[in-house]
Amino acid sequence: MAEEVTRVIVAVNESSIKGYPHPSISSKGAFDWTINKIVRDNVSAFNLLFLHVQVPDEDGFDDMDSIFASPDDFKNMNQRDRIRGVHLLEYFINRCHEIGVVCQAWIMHGDPKEVICHEVKRLRPDLLVVGSRGLGPFQKVFVGTVSEFCWKHAECPVISIKRKPDETPQDPVDD
Amino acid sequence: MAEEVTRVIVAVNESSIKGYPHPSISSKGAFDWTINKIVRDNVSAFNLLFLHVQVPDEDGFDDMDSIFASPDDFKNMNQRDRIRGVHLLEYFINRCHEIGVVCQAWIMHGDPKEVICHEVKRLRPDLLVVGSRGLGPFQKVFVGTVSEFCWKHAECPVISIKRKPDETPQDPVDD
Repeated sequence: MAEEVTRVIVAVNESSIKGYPHPSISSKGAFDWTINKIVRDNVSAFNLLFLHVQVPDEDGFDDMDSIFASPDDFKNMNQRDRIRGVHLLEYFINRCHEIGVVCQAWIMHGDPKEVICHEVKRLRPDLLVVGSRGLGPFQKVFVGTVSEFCWKHAECPVISIKRKPDETPQDPVDD
Repeated sequence: MAEEVTRVIVAVNESSIKGYPHPSISSKGAFDWTINKIVRDNVSAFNLLFLHVQVPDEDGFDDMDSIFASPDDFKNMNQRDRIRGVHLLEYFINRCHEIGVVCQAWIMHGDPKEVICHEVKRLRPDLLVVGSRGLGPFQKVFVGTVSEFCWKHAECPVISIKRKPDETPQDPVDD
């Protein structure tokens, strides 16, 4: 049987729900699914690679509560975003450590779908796992989906794990 | 960790290449990938369910070399198709037997993409694996893709395994 470990990139992001600075529901779902259904107790046969892509905020607004007017504000934002991203990755790294799966994690900046596909090209994983909010066609027109783009363009097999219906927040575009 | 086995439906079909009565290149690729990258040596933790959907031939032509003019011809075709389908499934069942993975296999009739999604709904697997010819957008317009439909509509996570470039037959629409 296969000699080399199976390398899985899991693309993770933060929750978009205000005041909820945690992994998004769909990122957590994608991770749990990968562990429970694929890795199972065969922990030494898999490597998980967590990629978090931060989106530079073009119009100078932060999602949360700040308006930026000087380069210093951006410096602060970047610093804060960096810390947030690190906390996000820490969550997954801790989970892997408890389970006993070897993992790595890193942060990139840019358009998530483009960066994820670029990292797949660079790292050639066996599998890419992305969470998905499971939006209907009408909602997709407005918010786009990273998972669909990756499914079409990433140069490796892609699984998209849809959020469970009972985990859907009040506004399905939230996550 | 997870107690129940991970149930994987693998949708398989025959090669469309003339005189090549074997599993399609992409079906074999999807199976090999599932074994090598997911199941690995954790064989007791997975069940593989092979679904082969036969398409009723609407215009009375068989792909191969026959023209049908009477109900008897159709009876013969159905019989032959049934035998072919059984041979196809035998290939995968034998492979699983060698590897030691529990498996089941069955044949359905209808539009593959619709039947696959229906069977996913009925059997609620943890994962659906489909092979894909990796056609470009231009070719897709004419031949459609089962994998894209399943990815969008099947009620479980879906992996589509693209055929490797070096396995592409002369006409990429063949498989």
